[in-house]
Amino acid sequence: MADIQARCLYDFAGDDQNGELSFYTGEVIYIMRQDIGDGWWEAKNDQGDQGLVPESYVEILSVPEPDFLPPPPPPAVSEPSAPPLSLPSNGFSAPPPQQQQQQQQQYNAQQSFDDWDEDWDDDDDESSNSTIGHSQDLGGQGNFGLSAPTKREKQLSPGTEMSKYGTVKSSFSRFSSFAKTGGDAFLMGQTNDRVPDSDKIKIIDTADGPMWLNQDSAYTCAVTSPKKESKMKGLKSYIAYQLQPSFSNIVVSRRYKHFDWLLERLEAKFVCIPIPPLPDKAVTGRYEDDFIQERMRQLQGWVNRMVRHPVICRSEVFHHFLTCTDDKKWKNGKRKAEKDEFQGGKFFHVLQTPTEQLDIRDIEKKMEVFIKFVNSMTDNVKNLITVHHEYAKKQLGPFKREYSKIGSSYRQLAQTFTMDKGAYAQRLTAAIDYTGEAFNDIGEMFAKQPPKDSYPLLESLYEYKGVLHVYPDVLKVHEGAIGKAKDCMKLQEEGKMSESEVNSVLARADTISYGTLSEMNHFQHERVVDFKHMMQSYLREQIEFYKQVTSKLEQALQHYDDA
Amino acid sequence: MADIQARCLYDFAGDDQNGELSFYTGEVIYIMRQDIGDGWWEAKNDQGDQGLVPESYVEILSVPEPDFLPPPPPPAVSEPSAPPLSLPSNGFSAPPPQQQQQQQQQYNAQQSFDDWDEDWDDDDDESSNSTIGHSQDLGGQGNFGLSAPTKREKQLSPGTEMSKYGTVKSSFSRFSSFAKTGGDAFLMGQTNDRVPDSDKIKIIDTADGPMWLNQDSAYTCAVTSPKKESKMKGLKSYIAYQLQPSFSNIVVSRRYKHFDWLLERLEAKFVCIPIPPLPDKAVTGRYEDDFIQERMRQLQGWVNRMVRHPVICRSEVFHHFLTCTDDKKWKNGKRKAEKDEFQGGKFFHVLQTPTEQLDIRDIEKKMEVFIKFVNSMTDNVKNLITVHHEYAKKQLGPFKREYSKIGSSYRQLAQTFTMDKGAYAQRLTAAIDYTGEAFNDIGEMFAKQPPKDSYPLLESLYEYKGVLHVYPDVLKVHEGAIGKAKDCMKLQEEGKMSESEVNSVLARADTISYGTLSEMNHFQHERVVDFKHMMQSYLREQIEFYKQVTSKLEQALQHYDDA
Repeated sequence: MADIQARCLYDFAGDDQNGELSFYTGEVIYIMRQDIGDGWWEAKNDQGDQGLVPESYVEILSVPEPDFLPPPPPPAVSEPSAPPLSLPSNGFSAPPPQQQQQQQQQYNAQQSFDDWDEDWDDDDDESSNSTIGHSQDLGGQGNFGLSAPTKREKQLSPGTEMSKYGTVKSSFSRFSSFAKTGGDAFLMGQTNDRVPDSDKIKIIDTADGPMWLNQDSAYTCAVTSPKKESKMKGLKSYIAYQLQPSFSNIVVSRRYKHFDWLLERLEAKFVCIPIPPLPDKAVTGRYEDDFIQERMRQLQGWVNRMVRHPVICRSEVFHHFLTCTDDKKWKNGKRKAEKDEFQGGKFFHVLQTPTEQLDIRDIEKKMEVFIKFVNSMTDNVKNLITVHHEYAKKQLGPFKREYSKIGSSYRQLAQTFTMDKGAYAQRLTAAIDYTGEAFNDIGEMFAKQPPKDSYPLLESLYEYKGVLHVYPDVLKVHEGAIGKAKDCMKLQEEGKMSESEVNSVLARADTISYGTLSEMNHFQHERVVDFKHMMQSYLREQIEFYKQVTSKLEQALQHYDDA
Repeated sequence: MADIQARCLYDFAGDDQNGELSFYTGEVIYIMRQDIGDGWWEAKNDQGDQGLVPESYVEILSVPEPDFLPPPPPPAVSEPSAPPLSLPSNGFSAPPPQQQQQQQQQYNAQQSFDDWDEDWDDDDDESSNSTIGHSQDLGGQGNFGLSAPTKREKQLSPGTEMSKYGTVKSSFSRFSSFAKTGGDAFLMGQTNDRVPDSDKIKIIDTADGPMWLNQDSAYTCAVTSPKKESKMKGLKSYIAYQLQPSFSNIVVSRRYKHFDWLLERLEAKFVCIPIPPLPDKAVTGRYEDDFIQERMRQLQGWVNRMVRHPVICRSEVFHHFLTCTDDKKWKNGKRKAEKDEFQGGKFFHVLQTPTEQLDIRDIEKKMEVFIKFVNSMTDNVKNLITVHHEYAKKQLGPFKREYSKIGSSYRQLAQTFTMDKGAYAQRLTAAIDYTGEAFNDIGEMFAKQPPKDSYPLLESLYEYKGVLHVYPDVLKVHEGAIGKAKDCMKLQEEGKMSESEVNSVLARADTISYGTLSEMNHFQHERVVDFKHMMQSYLREQIEFYKQVTSKLEQALQHYDDA
């Protein structure tokens, strides 16, 4: 069938990640498929964007003449579709329509009012300096493209991809222009390399390849007790989380903006380490209890990962973040971190690597596999998120309904059976009533299951999605270095560079490779530990769930013993 | 929104029981709801009939102006709907579209060609006599409305309600006009009551009320080995089932038409006993193996119920059906049964009841409750059929798909993880791959489950639906008798009937009540036994299923032990 013209009756802010198409009232779109089911059609707009649209939001304008082919198969019968299920408070599912509308208004509002800046620029007289600090040149001829993202880029605007973890920097690539940055300067030996021994980060050779020394986590850090605080006589309010590292008795209070500052410092300093994005800034309901608890849990997850990282957990900036309570000291430490000599391209100065020379072609092959790995795993993780998200939605909705319907049907039957007052019938009637209750309970159990297994799993998957999202950019630093090193080798062949010059470039390229490989190795080891834990937890909860279902049914069966 | 006009693009033979609306190509119908989901809309036709229609079968002609109310909630996202799931061979689900079309043609064809007669009138020169025999007056002034349904009424025509068991006699009521039939004659003492003692059926008083004597089943009868046989040089072919009662070594061969003849004789004779309808005659695929096996199982179920019935299992006509192998004897026995003196209204002559007089008001109250019971149970059973049918469909489709999707996602993840050749990663990769397989297997297990639990349960529910469907008509015999008895009491008050005349009418009304109450009691006792068995079997299979799911997951979990 040719496409069907339809007019949009209302604004609709589609969820990109669910493959929905946004449109505005009055827009004309083209319905491509009406057999999607559950009230969704597939459509495209004039710009050629395709996606799902709620059929009740559009009005068909023209229907093409039917082509007299055999009729398409009629769809399966199912109960009328319910409104979309929104998982309470965790935000995994699409918002219910009202909320969606609100959000749409929110998006519109944000075009004139920047919620992000509002949260940032209140209580810190240094914030404007610090912003400038981020984008300034960090020394040498470049900084590996290390200028931090400007705040403006973090605004949520319609069409921006939103991930559970972190704001996506769609147009910004930290490391896209290696040649222009400090990395280049490092590679060519144009930067300072006097690093105090205490600052050195050691890389060792292992059977699995280069690794950061001290893989073991040295400490933990609890994120607790979110408190709503305010200043300027209540005009400004915010949530402060309490952090307590296991190595100290002092609790520090940190706001989201402090986390955000730390993230930027870590990104700026540790160029070969993918720093997982922070959980999203809230668009609405910033101070709702559920949201705050969820945010706290996600920040705890983020802190856990940082604490577990052998390089980050030992860094001065992270230590400053975890321990500083004094306002003045905080500002000094903040300024110091922002002016850190060994960040960006110059970070590689601090690496103390094995002396063995690396084979460029070997490294390139390894990188190729790893990039493929990251891309594949990105797809896999996105797919798992979709699949588990949908499964959770099904458990909350259709699965629960299915068992409730069975349950109600048996309870109704039992109700009828009570009309028969014969003694021979009483126990059966009671057993059937119990069976009805049991199926109702099983329905409830299905609906209560996702918070026990799917949501924790999804949270970990979202975290991985975040890390995987930033990793390709991180890998470009290395790609750039290898490219530059190969250029130098060509120049040597052409007699335009001396052997010793090239050798020293290659040695520095090896340092970048050692750092990059160490982090890759760290990532892979963490992945194995994380996924083992994720899968075990998920399966254990699933097993427990099915055991409970079995036991419910066994109880029901027992009621028939004397019936 | 106002209704939307739509033109039907194809013929569609809707399934009444699923609430579908039939229409023909070119017909204009009115779309009432488009938010049913899964590709179905609700519509009504010019005759005011309402039902579900497949949206792809119709073309929208006009859309009313949108009313500017807040938009309806958008539906939940779900995967595109698959074509309707047809359960293999058991026919519980709607036929797939091709078959549906074929069936539609079949229906049309039947209007000029009677498939039923075709099967009937081939090899039996007495069939036409026997048909006349059914409808002839059976003696006295009437026969309780006992004229058997004519064959023509059993034709399947579009719009006829079809049940799993039995063809529904929508316009025909066996017992609708009590006054005109032999029951009246019996009640008024106008019929012969010389019954040989050996033919008497005894009713006894028990704590639960009047009961047929000999509740215990005396024997069983196996229905086996369906054979395709043909005659007239292969022009006519049919399936013959082999019946062997446990009390004899002789196997008899019976066709569907013999069963049908028996059903009619039982209906004609045992007026206070609801005879369960036979399984449907097949419309298509009469000789397909699956169908034949299913038919055999259903006939076995029907025979079991007859064999278990304390009155029927001891009747001459049933004995003749189970044992006669000689052609000539068969015809004689057939003729004898058709001319049975004590059938219809005169059946009550053979009842030997307790002598205690019954209180009419008490009986009326009991009947009122029982009719309510039958009607409620009819609704409950229909509801259970719908619910279990839908659940089975969900297991075969969405449930299976859900677990397969989870399974595939993990297998893909494992595929990616194989790129990491590190020894530390191998076991995790294998465990995740196994987990993927386990979820796939669980999906398969869901799809394989309905034949183990839902289908047997549905078969029993369909059987009950059949009995419940005919029961109200059976109860009208009694209602008529009580009505007539009350009329006589009034006549006595008016001095138009003598006390002794009225007392003998009341005594005969008591006989009808005793017979009716005994059968009600039998029905209730059978119901308790049947539903106990049904529920136990269903729950046992469900428990086994969830145990298997649990064990699959436990196996998967074990793979992580050394990962």
